[in-house]
Amino acid sequence: MTLRWEGTGSDGRARAGILHTAHGEVPTPVFMPVGTAGTVKGMTADGVRATGARMVLGNTYHLMLRPGAERVARLGGLHALMDWHGPILTDSGGFQVMSLAALRKMDEDGVTFRSHVDGSKHRLTPERSVEIQRLLGADVTMCFDECTPFPATQEEAAKSMRLSMRWAARCREAFAPREGHGIFGIVQGSTFEDLRAESAAALRGIGFEGYAIGGLAVGEGQEAMFSTLDFTVPMLPEEQARYLMGVGMPADLLGAVRRGVDMFDCVIPTRSGRMGRAYTSRGALNLRNARHADDGRPLDPACACPACRRHSRAYIHHLLKCDEMLGPILLTWHNIQYYQDLMRRLREAILAGRLDVEAEAIEADWNCAHDD
Amino acid sequence: MTLRWEGTGSDGRARAGILHTAHGEVPTPVFMPVGTAGTVKGMTADGVRATGARMVLGNTYHLMLRPGAERVARLGGLHALMDWHGPILTDSGGFQVMSLAALRKMDEDGVTFRSHVDGSKHRLTPERSVEIQRLLGADVTMCFDECTPFPATQEEAAKSMRLSMRWAARCREAFAPREGHGIFGIVQGSTFEDLRAESAAALRGIGFEGYAIGGLAVGEGQEAMFSTLDFTVPMLPEEQARYLMGVGMPADLLGAVRRGVDMFDCVIPTRSGRMGRAYTSRGALNLRNARHADDGRPLDPACACPACRRHSRAYIHHLLKCDEMLGPILLTWHNIQYYQDLMRRLREAILAGRLDVEAEAIEADWNCAHDD
Repeated sequence: MTLRWEGTGSDGRARAGILHTAHGEVPTPVFMPVGTAGTVKGMTADGVRATGARMVLGNTYHLMLRPGAERVARLGGLHALMDWHGPILTDSGGFQVMSLAALRKMDEDGVTFRSHVDGSKHRLTPERSVEIQRLLGADVTMCFDECTPFPATQEEAAKSMRLSMRWAARCREAFAPREGHGIFGIVQGSTFEDLRAESAAALRGIGFEGYAIGGLAVGEGQEAMFSTLDFTVPMLPEEQARYLMGVGMPADLLGAVRRGVDMFDCVIPTRSGRMGRAYTSRGALNLRNARHADDGRPLDPACACPACRRHSRAYIHHLLKCDEMLGPILLTWHNIQYYQDLMRRLREAILAGRLDVEAEAIEADWNCAHDD
Repeated sequence: MTLRWEGTGSDGRARAGILHTAHGEVPTPVFMPVGTAGTVKGMTADGVRATGARMVLGNTYHLMLRPGAERVARLGGLHALMDWHGPILTDSGGFQVMSLAALRKMDEDGVTFRSHVDGSKHRLTPERSVEIQRLLGADVTMCFDECTPFPATQEEAAKSMRLSMRWAARCREAFAPREGHGIFGIVQGSTFEDLRAESAAALRGIGFEGYAIGGLAVGEGQEAMFSTLDFTVPMLPEEQARYLMGVGMPADLLGAVRRGVDMFDCVIPTRSGRMGRAYTSRGALNLRNARHADDGRPLDPACACPACRRHSRAYIHHLLKCDEMLGPILLTWHNIQYYQDLMRRLREAILAGRLDVEAEAIEADWNCAHDD
């Protein structure tokens, strides 16, 4: 049987469930740490597992350039390479081609671009993207689509979305069904309700193992993102997983879970960790700030990660000031842990039918500043 | 009782023993990973422990500048700050003042210098160095000495050594005896046998809990280092620990253990790891080299560290090429593990009375290149 999602409970529009994959079961809502180039930056795979993370994301664009999809396959696939034995979702490369690559040239068939690393020329088509994701060994393959810029006029967004829908049909066609594996369609259409409806209908007509919502968290703001979710999520099938791509801050996750989203990925916890930022149950902290220099308290007393159990804010501040690798390592670990703890709390609240109360408590804590 | 070393066996000139400290027992010969600024670069304290390391080194110079010795003391000491619950040896700051600080001005009383970080002015004297090491919480305090440049004329080396001996007396005087803590004198005198003899006699006259050999691994070469050890080690008391500072490569450790040295520290395993170099039972490997790009074998099949058990040379090569933090993290882990495994093997061989055979086998393996 291909990959499937099974609902296990709901509370309002929010849902709890289990994603059944070739590499095990994943309780949803789930946050997937991003392992761009075959590593969650700054973490060993053991460390990632220790946070409770069950599923990670890999980037087709980065991995096709280095070390190369065929090489990954020769080396046994991405799971073996990065020592990650849970499921892996790979994106299609479309977003990074738009945001990172140089000299893009798009046509109906696909995109030609030059690598941001060494200027070498590459081509991605729906078929090649699906092939690369198979070579990597992805449990969840994503459709290759065009990343619609934001803001876009309704006409621009429509044109871009319709190209992505034609590509989605080619991706579905190119995808070889395998036990526990699946391919997700991506709903586009910017913030336009009728375009989102047209896109969702097109994808449902093709038929996928899951449905992603793309083109959000690109500068539209949380309010527009939430209102887009409000009308888009109900357009998706009840019986399959819903994945909001590239989102987000803890408050974005909370709001999107309440609107019925099951899956998330985002570089925020890892990238912020490298920059000195910690997300905690009492809101965010910038550990580069000198006010932490003498603070013997942990980042977050509610957290059981090694950074919080073993070290003080003063120590982490010191490490950042000295450009010691351990500073980013500890903050990344903490942030991934915080995101996992938050998702676990939301899953439990959904199953217990008390998500509203729990969400209110979480938000109240965020707004209750650290007492310093 | 102050810190003490207890011999448990010998083989030729090599000795096995136990260093009894306030933070536990350490089997010798021992290699101490270097935790310059309160962190073994790229490792969590849990990771360092997992390699079997029992004792680490901290740097007075770095820690007095950042985060500051008084601050470390307020935060509970270096053990608590870095989550290291085994013994810590701190150097005196003398070596780094000479190698890193700007605008040094030395007088009979001590050294005034400017920080290499922010140009701020600082002063170290024998008394202040001992005080800083107490504030840090060192189990082993090192005497503040002048780092004799190499090469030096006999006259220069004599003058420098005699200043260090006067400072050693002041350090001993300034050191407040505490249960399980001790202070080590440092034999100087460059490669001159009569100066080493004068220095060793002066230190024995003062009396220390252990004796270090300083001023080696500064460019004199392995042969001169070994011949200096050949005549210097017998000048030291039988019943106390002998520590060869800042050494070295695996072959240096092997040769020095055979000449009766008990303790070592060096940045080579950590620094080389960050540069892409692995020390293995079959010699050194440069993982940046393109020949590793498709090599699915572990760094060292004889090693049980996570880098070797979980990953291929191809993966580590990929991480280094992409400047991913995990590359240095895994190589540092492996190198520390390799050094710990090597020392364990030497300890066991000494206790079994088969060090010559074991040393020959280790060297033969080093010279038997990796089969690629």
